[in-house]
Amino acid sequence: MTNRTVGKTEQRWDAVAKVTGQANFTEDFPVNHLLHAKMLRATIAHGKVKAYDLSEAENIPGVVKIVLPEDVPQTKYATAGHPYSWNRQKKDIEDRLMLSRNIHVYGDEIAAVVAKTELAAEKALNKIKVEYEEYPVYLDPKAAMAKGAMRIHEERDNVIASTKVGYGELEDELEKSEHVVNEQLHTGIQQHAHMENQVAVAYRGADQRWLCISSTQIPHICRRICGEALGIPWSQIRIKKPFIGGGFGNKQDVTIEPLTIALSMLCGGKPVQIKLTREESLAFTRTRHAIDYDVRIGVKTDGTITGMDFKVISNQGGYASHGHAIGGKGGTFINSMYTMNSLNYEAKTVYTNQQAAGAMRGYGIPQVMYALESVVDDCADEVGIDPVEFRLKNTRAEGFFNTLSNLYQFDFKLAECLKKGREAFDWDHKRKACQAFNAQPENKDHKRGVGVGSFSYGSGTYPFGLEVSGARLILIQDGSFKLMLGSTEIGQGADTAFAQMAADTLGVTYDKIIRDAMTDTDIDPFDTGAYASRQTYVTGFAVKEAAEKMKAKIIKRASEIYDIRPEYIEIIENNLVYAHNEQLIAPLADVALASFYSPEHGQTIVAESSVNIHHNSYASGCTFAEVDVDIQTGRVTLLSMLNVHDSGKIINPLLATGQVEGGMAMGAAYGLSETLRYDAKGKILNNNLLDYKIPTMMDLPDFDHLFVESVDPLGPYGNKSLGENPICSPAGAIRNAVKHATGVKINEIPLATQTVFEKMKAAGLI
Amino acid sequence: MTNRTVGKTEQRWDAVAKVTGQANFTEDFPVNHLLHAKMLRATIAHGKVKAYDLSEAENIPGVVKIVLPEDVPQTKYATAGHPYSWNRQKKDIEDRLMLSRNIHVYGDEIAAVVAKTELAAEKALNKIKVEYEEYPVYLDPKAAMAKGAMRIHEERDNVIASTKVGYGELEDELEKSEHVVNEQLHTGIQQHAHMENQVAVAYRGADQRWLCISSTQIPHICRRICGEALGIPWSQIRIKKPFIGGGFGNKQDVTIEPLTIALSMLCGGKPVQIKLTREESLAFTRTRHAIDYDVRIGVKTDGTITGMDFKVISNQGGYASHGHAIGGKGGTFINSMYTMNSLNYEAKTVYTNQQAAGAMRGYGIPQVMYALESVVDDCADEVGIDPVEFRLKNTRAEGFFNTLSNLYQFDFKLAECLKKGREAFDWDHKRKACQAFNAQPENKDHKRGVGVGSFSYGSGTYPFGLEVSGARLILIQDGSFKLMLGSTEIGQGADTAFAQMAADTLGVTYDKIIRDAMTDTDIDPFDTGAYASRQTYVTGFAVKEAAEKMKAKIIKRASEIYDIRPEYIEIIENNLVYAHNEQLIAPLADVALASFYSPEHGQTIVAESSVNIHHNSYASGCTFAEVDVDIQTGRVTLLSMLNVHDSGKIINPLLATGQVEGGMAMGAAYGLSETLRYDAKGKILNNNLLDYKIPTMMDLPDFDHLFVESVDPLGPYGNKSLGENPICSPAGAIRNAVKHATGVKINEIPLATQTVFEKMKAAGLI
Repeated sequence: MTNRTVGKTEQRWDAVAKVTGQANFTEDFPVNHLLHAKMLRATIAHGKVKAYDLSEAENIPGVVKIVLPEDVPQTKYATAGHPYSWNRQKKDIEDRLMLSRNIHVYGDEIAAVVAKTELAAEKALNKIKVEYEEYPVYLDPKAAMAKGAMRIHEERDNVIASTKVGYGELEDELEKSEHVVNEQLHTGIQQHAHMENQVAVAYRGADQRWLCISSTQIPHICRRICGEALGIPWSQIRIKKPFIGGGFGNKQDVTIEPLTIALSMLCGGKPVQIKLTREESLAFTRTRHAIDYDVRIGVKTDGTITGMDFKVISNQGGYASHGHAIGGKGGTFINSMYTMNSLNYEAKTVYTNQQAAGAMRGYGIPQVMYALESVVDDCADEVGIDPVEFRLKNTRAEGFFNTLSNLYQFDFKLAECLKKGREAFDWDHKRKACQAFNAQPENKDHKRGVGVGSFSYGSGTYPFGLEVSGARLILIQDGSFKLMLGSTEIGQGADTAFAQMAADTLGVTYDKIIRDAMTDTDIDPFDTGAYASRQTYVTGFAVKEAAEKMKAKIIKRASEIYDIRPEYIEIIENNLVYAHNEQLIAPLADVALASFYSPEHGQTIVAESSVNIHHNSYASGCTFAEVDVDIQTGRVTLLSMLNVHDSGKIINPLLATGQVEGGMAMGAAYGLSETLRYDAKGKILNNNLLDYKIPTMMDLPDFDHLFVESVDPLGPYGNKSLGENPICSPAGAIRNAVKHATGVKINEIPLATQTVFEKMKAAGLI
Repeated sequence: MTNRTVGKTEQRWDAVAKVTGQANFTEDFPVNHLLHAKMLRATIAHGKVKAYDLSEAENIPGVVKIVLPEDVPQTKYATAGHPYSWNRQKKDIEDRLMLSRNIHVYGDEIAAVVAKTELAAEKALNKIKVEYEEYPVYLDPKAAMAKGAMRIHEERDNVIASTKVGYGELEDELEKSEHVVNEQLHTGIQQHAHMENQVAVAYRGADQRWLCISSTQIPHICRRICGEALGIPWSQIRIKKPFIGGGFGNKQDVTIEPLTIALSMLCGGKPVQIKLTREESLAFTRTRHAIDYDVRIGVKTDGTITGMDFKVISNQGGYASHGHAIGGKGGTFINSMYTMNSLNYEAKTVYTNQQAAGAMRGYGIPQVMYALESVVDDCADEVGIDPVEFRLKNTRAEGFFNTLSNLYQFDFKLAECLKKGREAFDWDHKRKACQAFNAQPENKDHKRGVGVGSFSYGSGTYPFGLEVSGARLILIQDGSFKLMLGSTEIGQGADTAFAQMAADTLGVTYDKIIRDAMTDTDIDPFDTGAYASRQTYVTGFAVKEAAEKMKAKIIKRASEIYDIRPEYIEIIENNLVYAHNEQLIAPLADVALASFYSPEHGQTIVAESSVNIHHNSYASGCTFAEVDVDIQTGRVTLLSMLNVHDSGKIINPLLATGQVEGGMAMGAAYGLSETLRYDAKGKILNNNLLDYKIPTMMDLPDFDHLFVESVDPLGPYGNKSLGENPICSPAGAIRNAVKHATGVKINEIPLATQTVFEKMKAAGLI
């Protein structure tokens, strides 16, 4: 009786709208008398504005207002999209102003122009003259940490946080180990490059409150941060999120909304729009953190891992944003994967004058998994054991209690993923085939290899973060339901999954659930938003609870109307039936109609839930990659790639496939090509889609993927996280495949052509 | 502890928006690529379209589509804004098509043009040629009822309904009475003339459903009627009502919305707008019913009323709309007011080819009260008793059980209103002063008089109609609340009253309640809408219940957080306090914050209600009017007017004053000047604001009003109806004042100059 729609591929509820262009994104909303704002950005990475000369800019026709830092609230706030915390220690660092004379990053917003047209605003920007005082620029965390380095934010040390987690006597364990592999690794600066750039429109509503329509992953958090930044009660802000063209974590930072509202305030409440260009979005928002790892792993000759030591330095850039949460969390996840006697994980997060790093799909895990899986792979080589076999030998068992997260890993199928992947990928045969290929003299400039990488990933943020979510269901006259959620569909298909969940629990068909593109903080149940692959897991509980309540209410009403005891009534495929034989009592639509119009029973039926989830489930998985390395040019071609995922029950196979394939592409790009580059003064060099190397269809092979489906006992529908997971393991697998092909360990991603070329040269292969 | 905001004048929540022009009405909503539709209207009042010639019209540049009746669904539907009823007998008559070749009224919609601009649509309309077959035109119900008259709607007799209610042996009672006064009276055709004409925009939403933004009093009913008219599931329609510029019942008919959606369907889901002009709105929507009364009242010499006989013929016009509900309901209300041994009330509602009559402020009561209070006044004259005294002698006592409505009139203060009004108006003195004035030879062409008229009015539609309403309250982080309602603010101030009610029950200040201009059928709790002066009464219960639930939830949460038993906690002025001594426990905002963010207590608090009200309260009141009649011209000048209202507890005195003063003006106009006029072919003659005589400020005196405030035991906050009440008694009072001044009974309203002139002439005064 359950699982009639959960587990089935249903068409996205917004599919038609998206392919026909009916879907309205923030920019599509028509607004009368819209004003356009643009920010003046610093052309130095560290320093101070000494003076502005606005004389020419003010005379540009169409300019409404030129706004300097002192014209907007000067309360420092934190941009990270985390729920509010009254625990000071958990509070994000408040180091950000909407506009500031103090410059921490190249491109910092030092003024704004509001104008009647974008062009007028742009022209005025070009006419503002700025006099700077310049300070030394630190791009490398080590430089920022060096003795005598200037503080980037006066009130805070450049090391914004450091932590040390672990257990056991690491040095003893390493000493007892026959082998200790030590590697230094470095990760690149991937950028989200979501299709839709950041855009927000704000104006004063008829109720004199401030409405902001924004492309945000976190409407409810955005409301709170705007309230804090503007210093007004949070209820005075209303955030609406329409269709959104991706976010990947970048829209989990509240970057433009407070300023958009502040500018509208300065313009008498008229609608003001801030719309970042692609160049701004790439260069002046957030990035994945670049992290340096110094890793030591002890192994016995039989392949048993004894201990691991990770020294981690995370480059935060100029603002704390999501800060230490990213570099700091790796230890828990390393521990979730492999058995060992001791683990030491020490992480520092350090301000530099580089573009601020924030949340990005995987939230630190793609980095740490690249490092871990590279060195684990090296350990396998060291002891001469097949890399898959080596991992299987050390993989955590199901039910393991992770002392670093205080969570049981009840349904943890990493080993099964590795086994299933080995078979499907034809690992053993491919390994040999690569060796045979490489041995052919005609292939002297092309070397092939296969590699594997694993990962584990949580479902939501518990116990570190708050996991509150809500859902509301409204029974409509014809037996349909409106589903209201505060969670955010950002392209991933969450709303379709939620509609399936609701339908499944209610006993109705998928088409009976109506969703809305708009998330509106005023009316939608509170939910913290789209991040941490939390929604199907956490919001799933809210949907289930609301649907259960709704179903019980319908059955109770039917019991009154038809005089049948509630326990004899069930809902199956839009009908009320006798539970024991499934014979029809009445169509659900009849009870719905009565709930509106019966003189006796007319009281409409709604159900609402607010859940606070105190558990988490570890998902896991792995990537198998096959590469061809062009030794002479350094070009790495990905020949095939397979991801295997342990994500519990798959709610919608086609949507899950979309998530996996997209993540694999982004993960392959993380390993192979995508990174932002800066000159020595911190100025970005490649903030455009020509020079920032996102792979095209032609750069990637057809991907394969498999699910090791299970029913996670803690998931609302047996499901665990999936959205971010696919990006976590490709980079390590690719690095290991290149090593298998060439014998060269490349401890720096992306394995860009230039990087690989240099490594091949250094290794004497050229 | 209660009544801190209820009973106080608080500023309308939308006051600033309205005076600054921030309030968005339907037409103000910016829509991309909007198409404009206009209807071709019949230029005959009865007949059939034989042929259309579209050849020229089709060639007008900008025309997108010309739509004939057969292009849109041809399912007959009822336009009346009543809740759906599964009782066939209570169902409104389905006699309406969106577009039809059959013409029942001059101006019937026989085709539509959709174009890129309004002008192009207008041009095309002018180029469509139509060939008609003409039938006899019946404007007088008696003609339509005559033997051999053609049926106006083929499937139905021209008498669409007739009823007879009453008790006692009327003829015996009249025979036993010393006096029987018999008068024939006729009421005019008032039109609502709301500031904002009907306007609707419809398009296909991203969810492939049909969104219609409309200036409607009844969004939820509109959804249902559109579903019925279009033959699609009701869930596939979403109605949004923004700010609305008045309705007075005319927007309680669903006239343009189904066609607007149908036209969008024919244009691929693109947004289509139908916006009536003032001329269309006046002539081709709805009017107040013109009703003929033949009244007999028996009175004893001591002034005791013995029995009443009402023969009523209501002119329905060409479509049934609200139909017999209006003409049929008078008996109950006559009975509510005066003691008698027998009542006979017989009413017929009759199709004619006149503009369809529908709901209008007062819904039949201004008509019957004009007739009743005229003849009651004549009875007083007949037996030589002061008109106020005469009424007081016969007024129903509090607690009377009305057998015609099956309701107790628990809190029925008509007698108190009359007494209070007599004193405040200085009735006795004014009566004498008029006589003295009239006796002066220099005043021979000006006669002055005073008159009184009474009324009673229900609060909502129970037991005749369904009274379901709902409310939802959401606690916001800072201790504010969002109040969601399906009821409709249409300018009357309902939302402000509801916010006061919620605040009062919650124990918070008025400013803590946030309302929304938009009513949205998808998300707002079901409520049938703004009519029957039901909202503060019926929706008031929903607000109260939601607020009580919310308060209990907050106290329960506070009890958990602060470890204090719930019964010791009270909420006063935004703080949680000890109930016994009002000492502070914590600001409500603290509990609100915890409900969002406490790791332990984080579950957001919402409360929702859906109420089904099975009672009703009779409100009552009276008007005292003083007039000057210019005998030579027939011009009646209103010198002063006082309304006294028994409406229970007054929620917001200033808003109530607004309702009363507006209603008095409309009521005075009903008695004095407003009526639509038609030529013999049924063509409207005065559908513009120059010829349709709405009084201006200069035509009216300053009005006075008083409330006989009570606490109605059945009202949610002791309140009863008020919105429609003020319009019910002025016409009778004015007619009686003119009679007092001139000695002439004018049994026809409005007392327009021409009418009065003719009556004065007939009476030999000129």
